[in-house]
Parts: sequence; structure tokens; C-alpha cells
Amino acid sequence: MNICRFNKDRLGVVEGDKVYDVSAALRVLPASKWPPQPGDPIMLHFDTLKRAIAEARPSATAHALKDVKLYSLISAPSKIMAAPANYALHALEAKDPGISHGLHDKQLEGVARPVDKLGIFLKSNTSIVGPGEGVALKFPERRNDHEVELCCIIGKGGRDIPRAKAFEHIAGYCLGLDMTVRGAEDRSWRKSVDTYTVFGPWMTTADMVKDPSNVTIWLTVNGEHRQKSSTAALTVGIAELIEMCSSVYELFPGDVLMTGTPEGVGPVKPGDVMLAGCAELGEMRVDVRAYKPGA
Amino acid sequence: MNICRFNKDRLGVVEGDKVYDVSAALRVLPASKWPPQPGDPIMLHFDTLKRAIAEARPSATAHALKDVKLYSLISAPSKIMAAPANYALHALEAKDPGISHGLHDKQLEGVARPVDKLGIFLKSNTSIVGPGEGVALKFPERRNDHEVELCCIIGKGGRDIPRAKAFEHIAGYCLGLDMTVRGAEDRSWRKSVDTYTVFGPWMTTADMVKDPSNVTIWLTVNGEHRQKSSTAALTVGIAELIEMCSSVYELFPGDVLMTGTPEGVGPVKPGDVMLAGCAELGEMRVDVRAYKPGA
Repeated sequence: MNICRFNKDRLGVVEGDKVYDVSAALRVLPASKWPPQPGDPIMLHFDTLKRAIAEARPSATAHALKDVKLYSLISAPSKIMAAPANYALHALEAKDPGISHGLHDKQLEGVARPVDKLGIFLKSNTSIVGPGEGVALKFPERRNDHEVELCCIIGKGGRDIPRAKAFEHIAGYCLGLDMTVRGAEDRSWRKSVDTYTVFGPWMTTADMVKDPSNVTIWLTVNGEHRQKSSTAALTVGIAELIEMCSSVYELFPGDVLMTGTPEGVGPVKPGDVMLAGCAELGEMRVDVRAYKPGA
Repeated sequence: MNICRFNKDRLGVVEGDKVYDVSAALRVLPASKWPPQPGDPIMLHFDTLKRAIAEARPSATAHALKDVKLYSLISAPSKIMAAPANYALHALEAKDPGISHGLHDKQLEGVARPVDKLGIFLKSNTSIVGPGEGVALKFPERRNDHEVELCCIIGKGGRDIPRAKAFEHIAGYCLGLDMTVRGAEDRSWRKSVDTYTVFGPWMTTADMVKDPSNVTIWLTVNGEHRQKSSTAALTVGIAELIEMCSSVYELFPGDVLMTGTPEGVGPVKPGDVMLAGCAELGEMRVDVRAYKPGA
């Protein structure tokens, strides 16, 4: 099932070029009382929600997919975790002075598994947007890059999850753009600008993705090819990343793991149109604009 | 007013050595429906809550402060922002090989304002605990350090907040321990281990802290003096940090800004007792234990 959030607060099921409005299913999400439970509400109650969606689907109104504005299904994870330099050919790109800033290439010299050296970094929840919201460049005088990634959405939380059981904890997948200001600052700073984390086009449930460790993700800018790779090229694979993350912090339903970006990252400017896709996960168009104060 | 969370889900007002149970005031917090509003519920509704607390206080039951278990009042901020190396004498400590790991001292050589070079880093929400919960060392084979800090709790959110208006956005203050695994990994990884962010002993509302830019924070381990500094020694002050943070990401009520740690950081081991304090903010005892899987 492909589950989307659209037109601000509607819940949809995507089938072909149609979105079926199953917002009626949202009634099963219990109102949350203090103290708040960690995790995204959609994923904290996902089993119940899935049943309600199945009930709502037959009588759901259909919209043309092209006419709806897509938001991020996950909006309040306890955290967004991201793997740095997790494709070998992207790690090599750090030699580009526009990427290295006299730092990143040196850090990666002779390092086979950057994740072991650099750890996993966090991105701010407040940087999340959906594809329909677009990316607003806040520091146009600096280099702002696209980084397309496969994202795993945690369904079942846990600590110290062994890699052999990691996939049991994944509810679904989506594409992610880890938009990045190049520089020497900590990753959690340069990659957490408002709108710099795009999740979409929707969440595809895990049962629909036969082998997430071998899907091809790609990105174009204004129709020009920029990134394309199979996730088979991940240096540290999905299961091991989950083992690693859960060894440091407890995972909660709705947490998102961004697995890393392949080679081909590059700058974008206001007016650019990014298109990201994956045969198993769909395609999303993301417009780039200049940030305007107060907008 | 000193507002605390105690005994798991009780709300209290601290006066001298007593905690007054004002949990009745929690009824004014509206139940949260999907899509979730960014921010911590306590701070999203703080004006209403304060009035309800004032109403509940006269008939509130008193407990001895020493008999209650203190939790973190803020448990679901949209983000925890932290300033690295923001006291000059702590930045000098990076020369200690146990801190530098061949990296941090070099990064700071000749840098007057580390925050400009390194940016602000994020800590995971899931690492938050209160003083009564203690810190569990997950990687005892590595060096795990205490870092006591002054924390600002955002009351009013916003973007692009000028420093002249920054204090209008702060609802209160507390002490924070930015527990840290030493190493070369990203800060957002080494400082986000479960239990590695202690907020307490409670939140002191901003009206009670005459000059947060000149309060003395201190920390002892097993009664031995370790850290003590006035916040007047902050390299980049509170108002400018808020200006800086809000230039990158929107702030929401309940966001916590950890302003940096002064000199004197050092390792702790299971069995250690940390005591942190500030005349304006209270004192908190935090026990260190070894992490036990499943516990």
C-alpha cells in the first residue's frame, strides 16, 4: 500500500495516477494526552490505522494524483537519523573542494566504512517537508546540494536490535532529499535548515518492496540526470545501520533512517525543479525557491 | 516559579524544600489530534497552564522535595540545539588527547568563536531524562564526560529572531548535562545516547532569573569539584545564539538551547554521583550507572 498525506491534513492511498481520500480512517488515532508518547502518531498506531484505511478505501473519493499537494506522512518522528558518506562513489566526491571545505576529504582518507568513523548524524524534525511544499534556499550565497536517499520508516521500536531482526522493525520506505549546505560545520547544522528534509512522495509499506537493498534511486534537476544508483552500493547496509542506531538510542515508531546518498550530488538554485524517483517507491517533483522572510 | 515534573507524570511547583502537586492544572492541556503541532505540549500552552497552576497551588498537597523523583519537564521538544566549545577555557581543554581524538583541537586552532566554525549541533529528543532517572553508560570502554550547561527553554517560537528580541522568546531556564562520549564521530551521535541529556532539576521561569548571562553553574562528582563558571564567560551569548539558531530553523515552544559547557569536563564511571547546581536554578543529583540491556 502507498499511503500519502495530501492537501495539508488529508490521508490518501495512492493507486496508479489516483489518490483515494481515506481521511475517515484518521478517527482511530487516539487523541494524545500529556505526557506525550515518543514517536509519530501515524506509526504509533499503524496496525489499527491500516485496518481503518482498508475499511475506508471502498467508499473513498478519488483525486487525480497530479492535482493534489503532497506533504510528508511522517511529521513528528522522535528523530531523523542519517548515514554520512555511505556510498563509496559519493565519498570520493568529497575531494571536490566545494564539498570538502578542507575537511571532509581528509576525514575520509583510507576509511572503508565512513559510518564507523563519523557515526550517524541527526537532522531536525522541523526541517521536514513534503514534495509539494518545496525547498526554500536560505543561504543562496553558499552551495546548497541535493542528496537523494532511500529512507526506512521504523514501525516497531526497540533497543539493541540485532541486524538479523532489523527488517522486522521497518514499516515502510520512502524517498528522501537530504538537502545540504556545504561547509565545515557539523552535519546536524548544515542539513537541518527549514525545508531541507523532503520525505515523499508517500510511504510504501514494506510488503511492497521485495528487496530494499537493491532498488534504484535517481534524481534529475531540470530534467538533467544527476544521481542514479542501486542501494546495493550502500557501504553499510540497512540492517547493519539499524543495529548500529539502536545500539546508541532507542528507536520509536515513526523514526526515519536516511541511508545515505550516492554519487552525483550537486548544487541547486531558486527556480530549479528536482525530480526524484524509484520504481518501487514512486516519483516526486520538488521545486526549489529562495527563502523569503515571513513567507 | 519553579515548575517540575515528578513521580513520572505529576506536575509540581517547587518552593524551598517542598514540591506542591499541581497536577490538576494539566487538565487545561488540550488533547492533541493529528497532524501533531510541533513543540512540547507544556510550552505550547504555557500561558494557560500557568494560570491553572496558580489556581491549583493553594489547595495543592505538599511533598518533601527529597522524597520525589524528578523527571524532565520538557520531554517532546521539536529539537534540542547545543553550542559546541562555547567557553574559551573549555575550548582549550580540547588539547587533551582524550578529548581531541586528533581532530577537535586542530579544528579549534586560532578560532575565536567556535560556534561560527562548527555551527550548532542537535541532540536526540530520545536522550532526554530527568535527574531522578540518572545516566546509564552504554559504552563504558570509552570515555564518557559530564558537561554542565545553562539551558534556555523557548516559550515563543519564531524565525529570524533578532538578538535584541531574543529574550522575549525564552520562557525559562534549567540546568542541563550534555553527557558526551569522546571520539571523532559527529557530535549529534556521541551526545545522543539514551539518557545522555539531563534537564533539571526543574524549569525556573524567566522572570525569576535577573541576569541569565551572569549566573554561576557548577558540577561536582562524588563531592569533588569539577566545573564552575559564570555564564558571563560564554563566547557567544544567549541572545546571539538564539538569533543564529532561528536564522537556520524555526523555533517552537519547548525547544531547548544548551548554551555550552565551561572548563573542567571529565569522565564519569558507574557508581559516580554528579551534583549540578546554580543558585538561581536549584541543584540536582544525577546518579551514573552501567547500561543493562532490557532494563
